[in-house]
Amino acid sequence: MQTPGATAPLDTSVYAARMDRVRAAMASQHIDVVLLSLGLDLPYLTGYHAMPLERLTMLVIPRAGMATMVIPGLEAPRVTEQPGVFELRPWAETENPVEIVARLVGRSSRIAVGDQMWARFLVELLPLVSNASYVRAVDVVGSMRMTKDAAEIAALRAAGAAVDRIASELQAGRIPLVGRTEAEVSADLGARIVAEGHQMVNFAIVAAGENAASPHHTPGARVIRAGELVLCDFGGTMNGYCSDITRCVSLGTPPSDVRDAYDVLHAAQQAAVRAAVVGTPCEEVDRAARRIIADAGFGEYFVHRTGHGIGMDAHEDPYIVEGNRRPLEVGHAFSIEPGIYVPGAWGMRLEDIVVAAAGGPDPLNVVEHDLVVLDV
Amino acid sequence: MQTPGATAPLDTSVYAARMDRVRAAMASQHIDVVLLSLGLDLPYLTGYHAMPLERLTMLVIPRAGMATMVIPGLEAPRVTEQPGVFELRPWAETENPVEIVARLVGRSSRIAVGDQMWARFLVELLPLVSNASYVRAVDVVGSMRMTKDAAEIAALRAAGAAVDRIASELQAGRIPLVGRTEAEVSADLGARIVAEGHQMVNFAIVAAGENAASPHHTPGARVIRAGELVLCDFGGTMNGYCSDITRCVSLGTPPSDVRDAYDVLHAAQQAAVRAAVVGTPCEEVDRAARRIIADAGFGEYFVHRTGHGIGMDAHEDPYIVEGNRRPLEVGHAFSIEPGIYVPGAWGMRLEDIVVAAAGGPDPLNVVEHDLVVLDV
Repeated sequence: MQTPGATAPLDTSVYAARMDRVRAAMASQHIDVVLLSLGLDLPYLTGYHAMPLERLTMLVIPRAGMATMVIPGLEAPRVTEQPGVFELRPWAETENPVEIVARLVGRSSRIAVGDQMWARFLVELLPLVSNASYVRAVDVVGSMRMTKDAAEIAALRAAGAAVDRIASELQAGRIPLVGRTEAEVSADLGARIVAEGHQMVNFAIVAAGENAASPHHTPGARVIRAGELVLCDFGGTMNGYCSDITRCVSLGTPPSDVRDAYDVLHAAQQAAVRAAVVGTPCEEVDRAARRIIADAGFGEYFVHRTGHGIGMDAHEDPYIVEGNRRPLEVGHAFSIEPGIYVPGAWGMRLEDIVVAAAGGPDPLNVVEHDLVVLDV
Repeated sequence: MQTPGATAPLDTSVYAARMDRVRAAMASQHIDVVLLSLGLDLPYLTGYHAMPLERLTMLVIPRAGMATMVIPGLEAPRVTEQPGVFELRPWAETENPVEIVARLVGRSSRIAVGDQMWARFLVELLPLVSNASYVRAVDVVGSMRMTKDAAEIAALRAAGAAVDRIASELQAGRIPLVGRTEAEVSADLGARIVAEGHQMVNFAIVAAGENAASPHHTPGARVIRAGELVLCDFGGTMNGYCSDITRCVSLGTPPSDVRDAYDVLHAAQQAAVRAAVVGTPCEEVDRAARRIIADAGFGEYFVHRTGHGIGMDAHEDPYIVEGNRRPLEVGHAFSIEPGIYVPGAWGMRLEDIVVAAAGGPDPLNVVEHDLVVLDV
């Protein structure tokens, strides 16, 4: 099996420093042990990506003492060891790895669990550890990952520039649309995502006409026709960090109601980008976009939050959503992607990745934001 | 986002019948409610694949009464509704979906949880449901999925034939190896997996020389050279069902010790296939291969189980492993893939998918099993 999009292992000192910060957070939050398996907290702390399979890989981090990576014996050769950061505990095919984890957990009373661990391992662990309470490890590791350092922002910027180049080709009419199916265009975008330097395609939504009213539409056999608005939302993972962009193009002059709605969307998206200054609560950024769309009478058609954090994960904290009072900090990276979706008719979304920087919002996607009209 | 490799929705009556069997299993196992999210139990019962994202999709199946699919509002348009099988409960961006699930779970005392659900949702659910115990849903739905019907076996056979065609090209020397990197050959195999009709590439391990001693090696920048043994283990998902095959080729005449070891491996693999008759415990099939490898002195180098079940999932029950006393039944499908791995030197594995049929073991992969020596 492969781990495409994996981060190249960093120097052991980087992982050691991150592990120190985890231990400090565990102490302040009274967490006895952190358990990490699938998901990107594990590679963030060790450089190693667990395989998404039924054989358990789990990093057990006690508040004091060395961390242990419990790993299938046949996968142990995959690990780049990081002396002083963790020890390996390979398990044989006839051992029960959850029992090994339970022994390492011992008498812990407060256990933090990685978000994307398979629930089966927690179900199996519950009866083996008595009187414990469980919390999400995102409060320990996720909050560290949220604040990107310069190298991480550079990686996000490179990935963003790569999808900008693809969007530029789309807007120049050099990616054929009319007469092809959504699925064909999606595959084309996927190939370009790889050709532009990503190791992994995360998604390539192509939604034509009324299909674009479904924000997470699966591209299918629907043929794209002249006269339609086509929504393309695509991204991948490049050197461990994600890209994500949405642009719409109009295949011929759009009807005036679509043109007017796009102008509202464009204004809302730019207002939210401008609002994304350090210190502003995430929900205020959401409101900046939502207010403009609602004032124009499209409020009921903006059915999702304004954005999500991005980094090693395509979606991570901070979420740009009503109710999230967390103030933006220097190094937060997130999407700004309002949309307007009229069921049965059309849908549109406009998305950039933005970094909260000391000098103000720093958009990583700069390709044309206006609705590009292509000759057909 | 996409769900490549998804099963096409079946007739509602198929899902209704499967749901009836789930309810019967719940009654006999005293399970009050089943919770399914990520993983393939959900599409097996509803035709719908949850998106692997932070917004919760969860099917709540009470022992009596209608099942409810709790789903992000923006993803509700993706669902093909199956009246009488489940109801939709879309949630808005400012709602807490786990609280919705907790209300549906009510006062259940025994809750079965899908294996691949993200642990974060169980962590969030635990404090909302008091005095409940948790078990794996695999005992309810997995045991149904283990026994394939005729249509499922036909799908597995078609996927198997597709990777056989690729293996045949490999063995004919029509997939260039010498001078290319493992990663390049892996990408080539991936493209062929799609070209042969799969919608999704699950893995394409290419491991040359000493790298093949790591059973789950990640193909990398290592250039393949004349004189080496190259292990290729690849598969994908075609119309919802998986393929998985391993073949090794020798780039020039192999050293006699490698040749001899391969003959042992070949004999062991064929013995295990012959042992896979209905009624035989899974562990006996494992022993059939292991005995031959151990008797030849390679026991310590066969570091994994003999195989895994396969179907909608690339790895599922039944596992062909010591300790699994489950007798094979008609319709079980699984890999038979012993290997010999000498660290620092070489590795080899030989794998077919086999169906336990009334007439005896039915291998779905029939391409040459002997070590093919290519001119270089």
